[in-house]
Amino acid sequence: MERYVLSADLGGTSCKIGLFDEATYTIIRKWTIPTDTSSNGKNILSDINKSIKKYMDKESIHINQIKGMGFGVPGCVTNSGVVNKCVNLGWDVVDVRNQFRKMSGIDNVKVANDANLAALGEAKLGSGKGSDCIVMLTLGTGIGGGIIIGDNILNGSMGAAGEIGHIVVNEDELEKCNCGNKGCLEQYASATGIVRVANRFMKEKEYDSPLYDYNKLSAKIIFDNAKKKDILSNEIISYCCAYLGKAIAIVCNIINPSVVVIGGGVSNAGEIIVDKLMDSFKDNVFHSALDTDIRLASLCNDAGIFGAALLVTEEGKK
Amino acid sequence: MERYVLSADLGGTSCKIGLFDEATYTIIRKWTIPTDTSSNGKNILSDINKSIKKYMDKESIHINQIKGMGFGVPGCVTNSGVVNKCVNLGWDVVDVRNQFRKMSGIDNVKVANDANLAALGEAKLGSGKGSDCIVMLTLGTGIGGGIIIGDNILNGSMGAAGEIGHIVVNEDELEKCNCGNKGCLEQYASATGIVRVANRFMKEKEYDSPLYDYNKLSAKIIFDNAKKKDILSNEIISYCCAYLGKAIAIVCNIINPSVVVIGGGVSNAGEIIVDKLMDSFKDNVFHSALDTDIRLASLCNDAGIFGAALLVTEEGKK
Repeated sequence: MERYVLSADLGGTSCKIGLFDEATYTIIRKWTIPTDTSSNGKNILSDINKSIKKYMDKESIHINQIKGMGFGVPGCVTNSGVVNKCVNLGWDVVDVRNQFRKMSGIDNVKVANDANLAALGEAKLGSGKGSDCIVMLTLGTGIGGGIIIGDNILNGSMGAAGEIGHIVVNEDELEKCNCGNKGCLEQYASATGIVRVANRFMKEKEYDSPLYDYNKLSAKIIFDNAKKKDILSNEIISYCCAYLGKAIAIVCNIINPSVVVIGGGVSNAGEIIVDKLMDSFKDNVFHSALDTDIRLASLCNDAGIFGAALLVTEEGKK
Repeated sequence: MERYVLSADLGGTSCKIGLFDEATYTIIRKWTIPTDTSSNGKNILSDINKSIKKYMDKESIHINQIKGMGFGVPGCVTNSGVVNKCVNLGWDVVDVRNQFRKMSGIDNVKVANDANLAALGEAKLGSGKGSDCIVMLTLGTGIGGGIIIGDNILNGSMGAAGEIGHIVVNEDELEKCNCGNKGCLEQYASATGIVRVANRFMKEKEYDSPLYDYNKLSAKIIFDNAKKKDILSNEIISYCCAYLGKAIAIVCNIINPSVVVIGGGVSNAGEIIVDKLMDSFKDNVFHSALDTDIRLASLCNDAGIFGAALLVTEEGKK
């Protein structure tokens, strides 16, 4: 009778919603709604509920046919599905599981951190498929990390495991990261980090480069020019990817995953990222983890809703 | 009928053997035998077997009363109990589980890395008791690391998880670590690392310090003098512990344990270690993991045999 799984990946601008076939884990339908962060984001869950109910009515799907709903949120989540501060959504402490249970009538509601869910999605249905232990880095505006061991998300004692973006990789950094520390990976290998490094390079030394012609730089512009053999762009990307390689080496020394998956918007640049980080990875990794497979993500922007859907059926998820 | 658990912690100089009460996990008897590393260490397992059999005969313990035997080895161990290169024991590839099963008649034989087992011992019976997720660092001649999540050792895909001693913490290091890389934690916070740093400090600058009066320095001598307010010794310990604090911060950002336990010979120096690493830990850790409890180990040199004994009864151990 139960045939569907629902999931939602909550972002600061929009929420992606997915309806999955429970048997095959294929997406039947996906859509997005805007995220209303006004009044401390108090309408976010009810907006999602309304949107789902509208779709279910239209397609004559009864609530009995829904096995459950999984949520991915950009913040720390306790084991009982409570979100503890989620700046991008305007949330302080929100009991997502119980609030959504009440408003939707769906009993099986699971909640986890979005980077962890992207990792779960890639581990089970994407680039990490078949591996027993994967680490995923999501390189976007910031950097998220997720660790999957066996079938389980490594959540950590306070729901804060996988904060790979905030590993300090450069002792000599003078500028502060958003987190308050200095020299975090996020300052070099996120989309904003790459642009930050570019601006610094362009100020410190004069290059003959097309990068000076852009009013506003983006990580994509820099990658595109690096591929066209622009020297400055290549220096920027090499510099940023060296820190990425170092951080991945550190994570591999600690976790020893079989696969490291690189996803998020920045990873759309393609294999150039893996090529550019490899020397630094090899210089910093312990020999037992030297053969770790470093791959690009394959589920693209859907990893989050795939992971949130998996949460509903797999055992051991929080 | 089964009343006992056996365990052995294999080191390059000696093997510690323990007999435990299965119900209470108290040590009934512990003893050590020398490790015979000649002929690629081919006698090590049979020497242990003979020593155990001799003791069992003397005390009239029948093999039916032995629930199983756990081994801790200083190297990587596969999920099937095969040790892959163990330099200190002279071993290349040794199938410990099956070899010992055959020679001893004990069917339930489990094998794991010694640092992982020390972590398991501390997690269940020592300083980490009651915690769901602990990380342990063993500061000895080298640095071992072990991660316990729930009841399970994090083994990693190639048995190489927890190599915390080989996290690169100093990009500017010129000397090579034993592993071939440069700037590993082990070069600063192991017993040999602390002495290495001391010798460097004493060469670079002239101090008025009692350290110059020793023919041969040791980590213990340096800690003892630091406690007596010797300026040089305090500078050395502060420098070394700053790297330790940084490495622990990195591990906490990735794993988010509730407790970090510091053990091994160096930890006998006491609370001075925790005091001296705290500033650097706070400077490098992500805010969600700031409250991680950092404690000294409590099982001292017995953590390994406790952990190896636990391996026999707990579920999910390799």
